[in-house]
Amino acid sequence: MAKVFDAAEVAKHNTAESCWVILYGDVYDVTGFLPEHPGGSNVILKLGGRDATEEFDPIHPSGTLAELDPSCKLGRVDPATLVAPAVEEASAKREQEGPIDVQTLLNLDEFEEVATKKISQKAWAYYYSASDDLFSKSFNNQVYRQILLRPRVFVDCTNCDTSTTILGHKVGLPLFVAPAAMARLAHPDGEHGIAQGVSSFGALQIISNNASQKPEEIVANSAPGQIFGWQIYIQNDRKKSIAMLKRINALPSIKFIVLTLDAPVPGKREHDERVGSLGKGLDAISDGTGEKRESKGGVGKTLFFGTATDLTWKTTLGWLKEHTDLPIVLKGVQTHEDAYLAMQFAPQLKAIILSNHGGRALDTAPPAVHTLLEIRKYCPEVFGRIEVWVDGGIKRGTDVVKALCLGAKAVGVGRAALFGLGAGGKEGVERTFEILKGEIETCMKLLGADKVSDLGPKYINSRAVERDIYDGHAGLEKVGLWVSAKL
Amino acid sequence: MAKVFDAAEVAKHNTAESCWVILYGDVYDVTGFLPEHPGGSNVILKLGGRDATEEFDPIHPSGTLAELDPSCKLGRVDPATLVAPAVEEASAKREQEGPIDVQTLLNLDEFEEVATKKISQKAWAYYYSASDDLFSKSFNNQVYRQILLRPRVFVDCTNCDTSTTILGHKVGLPLFVAPAAMARLAHPDGEHGIAQGVSSFGALQIISNNASQKPEEIVANSAPGQIFGWQIYIQNDRKKSIAMLKRINALPSIKFIVLTLDAPVPGKREHDERVGSLGKGLDAISDGTGEKRESKGGVGKTLFFGTATDLTWKTTLGWLKEHTDLPIVLKGVQTHEDAYLAMQFAPQLKAIILSNHGGRALDTAPPAVHTLLEIRKYCPEVFGRIEVWVDGGIKRGTDVVKALCLGAKAVGVGRAALFGLGAGGKEGVERTFEILKGEIETCMKLLGADKVSDLGPKYINSRAVERDIYDGHAGLEKVGLWVSAKL
Amino acid sequence: MAKVFDAAEVAKHNTAESCWVILYGDVYDVTGFLPEHPGGSNVILKLGGRDATEEFDPIHPSGTLAELDPSCKLGRVDPATLVAPAVEEASAKREQEGPIDVQTLLNLDEFEEVATKKISQKAWAYYYSASDDLFSKSFNNQVYRQILLRPRVFVDCTNCDTSTTILGHKVGLPLFVAPAAMARLAHPDGEHGIAQGVSSFGALQIISNNASQKPEEIVANSAPGQIFGWQIYIQNDRKKSIAMLKRINALPSIKFIVLTLDAPVPGKREHDERVGSLGKGLDAISDGTGEKRESKGGVGKTLFFGTATDLTWKTTLGWLKEHTDLPIVLKGVQTHEDAYLAMQFAPQLKAIILSNHGGRALDTAPPAVHTLLEIRKYCPEVFGRIEVWVDGGIKRGTDVVKALCLGAKAVGVGRAALFGLGAGGKEGVERTFEILKGEIETCMKLLGADKVSDLGPKYINSRAVERDIYDGHAGLEKVGLWVSAKL
Amino acid sequence: MAKVFDAAEVAKHNTAESCWVILYGDVYDVTGFLPEHPGGSNVILKLGGRDATEEFDPIHPSGTLAELDPSCKLGRVDPATLVAPAVEEASAKREQEGPIDVQTLLNLDEFEEVATKKISQKAWAYYYSASDDLFSKSFNNQVYRQILLRPRVFVDCTNCDTSTTILGHKVGLPLFVAPAAMARLAHPDGEHGIAQGVSSFGALQIISNNASQKPEEIVANSAPGQIFGWQIYIQNDRKKSIAMLKRINALPSIKFIVLTLDAPVPGKREHDERVGSLGKGLDAISDGTGEKRESKGGVGKTLFFGTATDLTWKTTLGWLKEHTDLPIVLKGVQTHEDAYLAMQFAPQLKAIILSNHGGRALDTAPPAVHTLLEIRKYCPEVFGRIEVWVDGGIKRGTDVVKALCLGAKAVGVGRAALFGLGAGGKEGVERTFEILKGEIETCMKLLGADKVSDLGPKYINSRAVERDIYDGHAGLEKVGLWVSAKL
Repeated sequence: MAKVFDAAEVAKHNTAESCWVILYGDVYDVTGFLPEHPGGSNVILKLGGRDATEEFDPIHPSGTLAELDPSCKLGRVDPATLVAPAVEEASAKREQEGPIDVQTLLNLDEFEEVATKKISQKAWAYYYSASDDLFSKSFNNQVYRQILLRPRVFVDCTNCDTSTTILGHKVGLPLFVAPAAMARLAHPDGEHGIAQGVSSFGALQIISNNASQKPEEIVANSAPGQIFGWQIYIQNDRKKSIAMLKRINALPSIKFIVLTLDAPVPGKREHDERVGSLGKGLDAISDGTGEKRESKGGVGKTLFFGTATDLTWKTTLGWLKEHTDLPIVLKGVQTHEDAYLAMQFAPQLKAIILSNHGGRALDTAPPAVHTLLEIRKYCPEVFGRIEVWVDGGIKRGTDVVKALCLGAKAVGVGRAALFGLGAGGKEGVERTFEILKGEIETCMKLLGADKVSDLGPKYINSRAVERDIYDGHAGLEKVGLWVSAKL
Repeated sequence: MAKVFDAAEVAKHNTAESCWVILYGDVYDVTGFLPEHPGGSNVILKLGGRDATEEFDPIHPSGTLAELDPSCKLGRVDPATLVAPAVEEASAKREQEGPIDVQTLLNLDEFEEVATKKISQKAWAYYYSASDDLFSKSFNNQVYRQILLRPRVFVDCTNCDTSTTILGHKVGLPLFVAPAAMARLAHPDGEHGIAQGVSSFGALQIISNNASQKPEEIVANSAPGQIFGWQIYIQNDRKKSIAMLKRINALPSIKFIVLTLDAPVPGKREHDERVGSLGKGLDAISDGTGEKRESKGGVGKTLFFGTATDLTWKTTLGWLKEHTDLPIVLKGVQTHEDAYLAMQFAPQLKAIILSNHGGRALDTAPPAVHTLLEIRKYCPEVFGRIEVWVDGGIKRGTDVVKALCLGAKAVGVGRAALFGLGAGGKEGVERTFEILKGEIETCMKLLGADKVSDLGPKYINSRAVERDIYDGHAGLEKVGLWVSAKL
Repeated sequence: MAKVFDAAEVAKHNTAESCWVILYGDVYDVTGFLPEHPGGSNVILKLGGRDATEEFDPIHPSGTLAELDPSCKLGRVDPATLVAPAVEEASAKREQEGPIDVQTLLNLDEFEEVATKKISQKAWAYYYSASDDLFSKSFNNQVYRQILLRPRVFVDCTNCDTSTTILGHKVGLPLFVAPAAMARLAHPDGEHGIAQGVSSFGALQIISNNASQKPEEIVANSAPGQIFGWQIYIQNDRKKSIAMLKRINALPSIKFIVLTLDAPVPGKREHDERVGSLGKGLDAISDGTGEKRESKGGVGKTLFFGTATDLTWKTTLGWLKEHTDLPIVLKGVQTHEDAYLAMQFAPQLKAIILSNHGGRALDTAPPAVHTLLEIRKYCPEVFGRIEVWVDGGIKRGTDVVKALCLGAKAVGVGRAALFGLGAGGKEGVERTFEILKGEIETCMKLLGADKVSDLGPKYINSRAVERDIYDGHAGLEKVGLWVSAKL
Repeated sequence: MAKVFDAAEVAKHNTAESCWVILYGDVYDVTGFLPEHPGGSNVILKLGGRDATEEFDPIHPSGTLAELDPSCKLGRVDPATLVAPAVEEASAKREQEGPIDVQTLLNLDEFEEVATKKISQKAWAYYYSASDDLFSKSFNNQVYRQILLRPRVFVDCTNCDTSTTILGHKVGLPLFVAPAAMARLAHPDGEHGIAQGVSSFGALQIISNNASQKPEEIVANSAPGQIFGWQIYIQNDRKKSIAMLKRINALPSIKFIVLTLDAPVPGKREHDERVGSLGKGLDAISDGTGEKRESKGGVGKTLFFGTATDLTWKTTLGWLKEHTDLPIVLKGVQTHEDAYLAMQFAPQLKAIILSNHGGRALDTAPPAVHTLLEIRKYCPEVFGRIEVWVDGGIKRGTDVVKALCLGAKAVGVGRAALFGLGAGGKEGVERTFEILKGEIETCMKLLGADKVSDLGPKYINSRAVERDIYDGHAGLEKVGLWVSAKL
């Protein structure tokens, strides 16, 4: 029978020398695990001696505790000795706000508004935040407003088919769920709820490397033909990444690996960090080792702990080839030069995602629309050799259609899926995609285009954006030479 | 003698199996009519078992009930058994606001402000609403602000003649009332009130397919020489459209048919839909048939029920020729390509209206000014072959003059007429046109132009707009080829 | 001895058949004068039977009553029978606000703020108002913000001379007071106060045709060398204009005649009209003659009564030559075409003023900066043949310097002089010009320019404006031909 | 033993004929010193007869009193006779606000916000203020937002080195502290506190000519290798400047002289002047000598008293060569023409600082980014001959990196250092630089650049700015000729 501890006894073990935590009523000695924690030791130390369940649960896939050495589990805590835990903020808010009929919500902004009220401040700060002054986050959307549509009339628009193929797989919508982390911060349905929510639309989902559920859980019960990608952040400790790849290779509904490149180090997301410094984030305590800045981060910075920063075209793609046969999709391309380079790694590399990480990496980085237009201008052959996907700033079906007209093969939504989840769990995601599909159909019909492959630049006027596109400083820079030099 | 029903008895018949409604004190069994209702069965079902007069009256032309089979009329309702109906919102508001002297209103914005207070929320939402984020609605007006006037001085401006010809007919103003639906939502004077209001200005009115009065009523008592057009939304059930055309052909003051092309499906007008989902719109109840999205619409979506989406250049114009000798005006052209195509259908087709449906169809569609400039740039011969009219965004006489300078032959106002009507009935419309005529005259005199035919591009500087006009993506798109392919 | 009337007796005479008014305690029968009143009969009828002193005084030069037939003066009113007149609003406000030390005001915006509080609502509405949506009024100033200065350094700026010549006359500043009407609405010092306020700066003043003081009063006691222009609005009744010219020709300090062309009819100044319709303006009563719109105007429209609208280049300049030897300055040129035409009437015509009438004539007319740039681009020879002056939107010394750099010979301020006067009478005007002179000097020193003639385009970067300048619609319009055709 | 005065006795001596002041408890007769005071006599007269310690202390380096003739010191004041001095505002505010943990501040805007609360109104007005409408101050920052970054991916960014060389000296950051005056207004740590705050970052500091501490104090205890520049405002009384240069030449850690050229006369800083006119500034009393405008200035204008305005390229640089062997850096270049001229004075002149004086000199002067782009376009050879530094508008590490990409060798921060100091003294400065260094590193890593010398135009898209750059008015101005003529 398990030993029973008094909470006061546990509370004494809150140092790097002896660190205990309570999880789901069990007492663990995690002293030996501290240096191995992917999120850094400080995150745990801060919770040392306390009931960490509320912090731990929404961001760790089930089974995480099973990875601990069994000897770590010391026994049970005596529940009577625990002070009543603060009611979990998010579920409290959810109750207080009362039920929302997500069917009455008409657009993605309304979803964000509702979700903002329902989810915890920590979750909101993590999802909402972007780097520095949120310029790129905001510009990602505004740039779509600068593009005008060109509706053709007197065209039979009775039928309209939003389906397309992505990497050769048939999908119901040209949309994908971008690999956003920590879905259970928004709602207990988590990433699996997203998967269920998009399944009836045949939409593709990319599972975050930092998902709060295990990939095996997320893809469980998916619809026939429903497909997934899996995002990898390669770890400094490569063997962890190799182990994960092995698990992914074994999941047949996961069709490709997404390697995210636009955030080798975290951007400066002040909304997220501010919650961290208020003691509400997944914060770490300064441990006096001189890593002072690291200790102040919010959720975002914590997640980057241990991520490799030394990736390069040849070595990393070669290493990946050793550990998976799945096609590779590069996420985070922001210049035509890198698109051009990527093309040369086909066919291992099958697609790129033009992305500035939702404005969360480098502020004032260009929106995907700029990079699309750069590629059209300087190296349109890229579109013929690999697929070009985009994400960032999508609020309307017209935004999706504009990206497709510019040559995108698929369009990602990140925050929209999370806010949909936060507002109404699986049903919220479903309604979010229903809205997007409806808006895409209306747009296509009013343009006079009855299938996705019809869409092209003739349906848009992007001149107001084109004049801002990088032009090699009027030819003063030798773009071509630099491309090869960087390879 | 008519049978007398107790209201409680009527209330039981509120299903698709047995649906009764009370209209003007009479009890009707409309069960058999449900599938035929142009606005869809749900709209009626929602009112089943109730006194529907208040909902029915302002949007149905008189005589509509006569189209029902006589056997549908079951008898009278016992007025004593009716609960006092909610006072009709709009007329209550009108009273409460007190009389407004429309002569004191100085501009169209003031009219909108007054009308917003006087008309019902439902009417306001229907008139005010535009699709998605109201970008095109707002841009329709803003684009006129980007154009500067170029007044010539030392020109005798004692005389100023605002008259012109439209399709060969002499009119007092280069203005027309755009075919806006449901005028009686704004004021009991309805479309006929608009006709009376504009008659002293010799302005042209286009009667909406969805007018709340019969065409015969609207054109009654019109001034000598006062002319009209009639807008058709061709119905899936073509025989209904044929019947209407027959009636129109018989009205000599109706000089042409307007075929609206920019809204084969309704745009997403959230203001309108929101009122609908609050239960105040002309809403339909979900009938479980899977047409869930349709059931949420406001006034706008309801009106589209039954409208054909399979119109094409050759078949539709050919079909029209069989049923009317009136000249055809195409409304909703938004690209120079379609203007170029339209020209080829002269002389049956005599004019096009550059319109994005007041921003109510596809958001981020171009304003008429963009399309005017596109035509000037790519196919100016259009102006010589057919008349080019515009609508959308007109707030000032200077806006009208700018459109004329760019080649428009006539300029339409939609919301302005409705808000004028809402603010003061027939007199409100009259004052609205008095303001516009005064502003046009002042503008022409200060430009040094004494007649409409004098106006031309030399009087404006549209350079700030020209640089945003579609340019075939700097020549990368083969515009010409696409034009012919689409025909 | 004068007969004494009871006020009640006077009150009976308030019709076009018998119209009496009380002015400065005297009773006048003005029935016979009604049709001759330059401001129209309605203005007087509205005051019929009443003490009109408060309305009459601030807008009529002294001596105006002397022009009446002596028999019109019927006698005195018995002061005891007069109801206490409403305290004059403006002077009441002036007292209530308390004395302002205008020396503490730092810029022109602060002056406008103070004056707005001190002057009557009617005066404010008249000065503040501009046509339609105030776009041109606002753009007049904003366009200066779009121009950047280019300061040269390491230049000895110990000395800085702001003096220049205008029409060959030495002036202390490149500034002139634009011909703004009705200065006594702002302050009893009136136009003479402005003259006194600018005298120590050697600034030029143009006297409005509608000044509230006689030209002879305004120029009285002017400083040696202080010069004036006189603005003429040619009247339909030419003999009135001829009489005025005769008086002007006799005043040696008036050096030129300004013929205003940008407002042959009044613009639509809604702020001004709104005060009018509230009964606080210099309004006219509808006289049933059908001139309904005219009756609603504020101060602005009233002043236009009787102004000729049939002026043309050849006839009008020829007529002027018959009645004055003074050089002519044309105000209101807004296109390079008219600047080019004007040049051909040198040497009778010696200067043009690029002006959109302070945004008070045609809204969305171009600011003077646009016209300056047009002339520089299309017909720079104009600068060599006649002087080019500008007005509109001046708020800062840097604005003045920018206009000079673009080729303006003199820069006018209108509202600034009136608000200066309203804030502090003669001293307010003086402080206003002290501020402007100080700002001009600071700007010139920091640019490294020590005299006005040094200033030129090399000191500014106007590229952001240049791209908006009229370009003949990319060459599609034949500018040259049109110029000659209009002559 | 010192004579003891009653405060009432001292109070009598408050005129130019006999002017006494109390400083640190001593009574001084400064009558004879009045005409020599670098800040003008009025500043002292205003404090005549009073305890001036509070006004005197924060803006005078220690030892200033030692420069007075010993006979001026008359004795001590009897402290009992002094009315309790008003508590010093700034230190009162500092206490009231309570301690701020500057480690919790995340960006420079937060520092400004905190400092604004903590420092005196006078200090805030002096630091915050810029000329006229603050257009250039605001544009200095906005122009960086118009430039987009172009991150390259798949680049090993494990290492990132922010060090560089400035004038051949190794520094830890490409940042310098711009020569901002009067640091002790913000915090008692003063300029020496700034020096200590930046020392661990190896950042360069330029000491203001108007520092509130002596250069010898400021550089005391600097870290090994820490370097400084010294800013000179050459005085009309050249011998004062010569004396200062002699002292500077003797300080080995001062490596260069900065000659500021962009403010030969003060700009119009209304925030600063307004505080002055409220009697809270370092104001001067009108002395009736006609220098009325001078007497109204705030801190800014007072500091300019006595500054030479007759500097020129040849004479001034020649004069400097006689008095110092240190290299010269010219601050305030705002055109490519002056950059081109400066290049010709190498090697005495080793660098230029593109600066509009933080928007404090001439409003609407161009930001440094414009001048950088001008040089790149018209005379890129400048970058090869002298170093080009910039300052103005820096808020983010990305701003710094963008300037470096455009060719800047070093980037200055002025207000940021002062607000850092105001918020937390030396520690505030340290945290400010920690933030900037962190942001610069994050930016470089996300761009894929691992050292400062890597940075170049390929990493940015400045097209939106380039189209606003001066273009010689489309070639109409002969730039080259003018350059030589001005020399």
